[in-house]
Amino acid sequence: MRQSQLFTKTRREAPKDEESRNAQLLIRAGFVHKEMAGVYSYLPLGLRVLENIIGIIREEMNQIGGQEVALTALQNPDTWKTTGRFDDAVVDNWFKTKLKNGGELPLAFSHEEPVTNMMRPFIQSYRDLPKAVYQFQTKFRNETRAKSGIMRGREFLMKDLYSFSRSQEGLDAFYEETALAYGRIFDRVGIGTHTYKTFASGGVFSRYSHEFQTICDAGEDIIYIDEGKRIAINEEVFNDEVIVDLGLDRSKLVQKKSIEVGNIFKLGARFSEPLGLKFKDEDGSSKPVIMGCYGIGPGRLMGTVVELLSDEKGLVWPEAVAPFQVHLLSLGADEGAEKVYKALTDAGIGTLYDDRPESAGIKFAESELIGIPCRMVVGKRSIENGMVEVKNRTSDESVMVPMDNLEGYFPAKR
Amino acid sequence: MRQSQLFTKTRREAPKDEESRNAQLLIRAGFVHKEMAGVYSYLPLGLRVLENIIGIIREEMNQIGGQEVALTALQNPDTWKTTGRFDDAVVDNWFKTKLKNGGELPLAFSHEEPVTNMMRPFIQSYRDLPKAVYQFQTKFRNETRAKSGIMRGREFLMKDLYSFSRSQEGLDAFYEETALAYGRIFDRVGIGTHTYKTFASGGVFSRYSHEFQTICDAGEDIIYIDEGKRIAINEEVFNDEVIVDLGLDRSKLVQKKSIEVGNIFKLGARFSEPLGLKFKDEDGSSKPVIMGCYGIGPGRLMGTVVELLSDEKGLVWPEAVAPFQVHLLSLGADEGAEKVYKALTDAGIGTLYDDRPESAGIKFAESELIGIPCRMVVGKRSIENGMVEVKNRTSDESVMVPMDNLEGYFPAKR
Repeated sequence: MRQSQLFTKTRREAPKDEESRNAQLLIRAGFVHKEMAGVYSYLPLGLRVLENIIGIIREEMNQIGGQEVALTALQNPDTWKTTGRFDDAVVDNWFKTKLKNGGELPLAFSHEEPVTNMMRPFIQSYRDLPKAVYQFQTKFRNETRAKSGIMRGREFLMKDLYSFSRSQEGLDAFYEETALAYGRIFDRVGIGTHTYKTFASGGVFSRYSHEFQTICDAGEDIIYIDEGKRIAINEEVFNDEVIVDLGLDRSKLVQKKSIEVGNIFKLGARFSEPLGLKFKDEDGSSKPVIMGCYGIGPGRLMGTVVELLSDEKGLVWPEAVAPFQVHLLSLGADEGAEKVYKALTDAGIGTLYDDRPESAGIKFAESELIGIPCRMVVGKRSIENGMVEVKNRTSDESVMVPMDNLEGYFPAKR
Repeated sequence: MRQSQLFTKTRREAPKDEESRNAQLLIRAGFVHKEMAGVYSYLPLGLRVLENIIGIIREEMNQIGGQEVALTALQNPDTWKTTGRFDDAVVDNWFKTKLKNGGELPLAFSHEEPVTNMMRPFIQSYRDLPKAVYQFQTKFRNETRAKSGIMRGREFLMKDLYSFSRSQEGLDAFYEETALAYGRIFDRVGIGTHTYKTFASGGVFSRYSHEFQTICDAGEDIIYIDEGKRIAINEEVFNDEVIVDLGLDRSKLVQKKSIEVGNIFKLGARFSEPLGLKFKDEDGSSKPVIMGCYGIGPGRLMGTVVELLSDEKGLVWPEAVAPFQVHLLSLGADEGAEKVYKALTDAGIGTLYDDRPESAGIKFAESELIGIPCRMVVGKRSIENGMVEVKNRTSDESVMVPMDNLEGYFPAKR
């Protein structure tokens, strides 16, 4: 894409009312727009990153047999009354609205109730199990504080997957499979080495749930990590009994601030029992379906990448999620740059081409703020020798690459 | 995909509370789930159709220079108060909710206000124009009646594009370009021949707006069409003055019921003026940006395809939007069918493979209800001769195709 066509512009200063580093940088670089506290729109560059993250999550969810659906934001109150979660005293972050002809209409902060209800016509027999269903859907949460940028929104996108099993053993097996898929997602997005599978509070149906926590000072959580075993305990369940139960050694655990980038939870029959999602087992008996739920917020993941990887010059995107693979800058050498742009585009390499009549200083600074992993500079002198200057965003050194070998410079196309 | 894995099932009867034919069929075939009146979730087959429609619209919007963004549902009330549209007496279908710490928070029924406001930092000079921005975003409308299935929802997906021009002439040119793109979209989705560009009421900045109306008895609109000129007049502006103005002949106009599948509207400075979206023109003067807005509801489009093309046996999907290209049925010949399934999948042909142990009668009936354009049947006898029976959904006759020539049978892969 030609940068002269892109409607967004970068800015030197972040808006004064924005406290979080991720939103400050993303707004300055033109990736998101702040509508109000906790409510952000995605601009073209930001939407590209978000879509790349969604694509990675979708691949991994399909890989474990997930089938994609799209539920609604508006909720039937009856379903939530049945499980006891309609009451504001039970769930304290509801947004509720009203139908014209009367009747309160809540906006989903999560989708356990509607997905359980939706599955009823489709699960009758043990032969219909197991199944897994997921979606990317907007959640609405009436947060009192929303000061973490795109990491904690009042309105945000969530990937939520729900599993439906015949037995606790079936759930346990799928739960472990999903945990592995989550690990692959965080690796692919570029935060794997900083992310720990963390024991957190469970419910009636299992002692623990698990969170995936990324070590980061911008995080709102406190965890205790065992570096060697690569697991952690959330502060909320951190006590001697749990440490012993997990076979850990208190002296080896290190306290860290962290961001919860995913969670997985065994629901058991918590929702299937009250909502009547039952199946006939092989022996003819009627049993509630055993459920699990598994969440990742693509926006929060994007915010975490920003918090973790950006530097004093700006954003730093890992290859797999970057809005473009190459940022091509023409420094008064448009004729040569056009050729390079065509060569890259023909080779299927996503390229943002800075074809604007700006100074080298502005182009370099903006390129570092935007954070595309590979920068290519076409200057008057170098292009006369058929050479392009190539630099990685995180490197201080550039290399000269022959113009006719640029394609070979890239391992993967996207 | 193997049908034995698909979590949805078809049903013989539509739910009794569902009045609309599109939702009745889509629910019976397992494409959508009704949460409540005017609120539908998309199941895997339905989501595939919706995504195909979205993909076609996205291609055409990119083609005319649209840049994709994603705005939010929650709205900053101030922006809407500035334009005078916050008041329930002015806009009668708002859904509004409340922030925990007080303050009314409306849910967007449209996005003119936030998009105008969002563009302010990015448009300062005539050099920044023209620009076009679009999104696929959920709209919330507090409809009193919601009886048209997925064609009129209280919550529904909308593609809305907004254009930003330097002058009325710039807007006029882009408006015509978009009208042509809309024509291509309706052609590609399979309803082009039934769809008329229709003159409807305009606003302060132009005498008419235009709707794209698809002739269909399930429609809520009344239009008067000129078959020869392929244009129409909406009932709301149908009078002698308009007929003369458009150079039409009353005796040649035929009254029809129709579905509004798209609309385009010249906004002029209606929103840019109050919200201060101004630019400095070449002569140094400050002028409001001249805007247009252009909407298509992908869900309504899907509902229109159902209303228009389905028959007494069930759904009929045009190739370009079908959830799969081929519905492969094994009639007790799984070994052969597996080979065909592999061959089709390897060739990149999207295939739903009915590998379930059901009777031929059930498989045939369900296949017609689901409406995939090409049905392939592998029977015991035919496969012994290396032949597969191929039938189009809309044809009564089938042909025998050699198993090793199935790929060649398809003009296009998807």
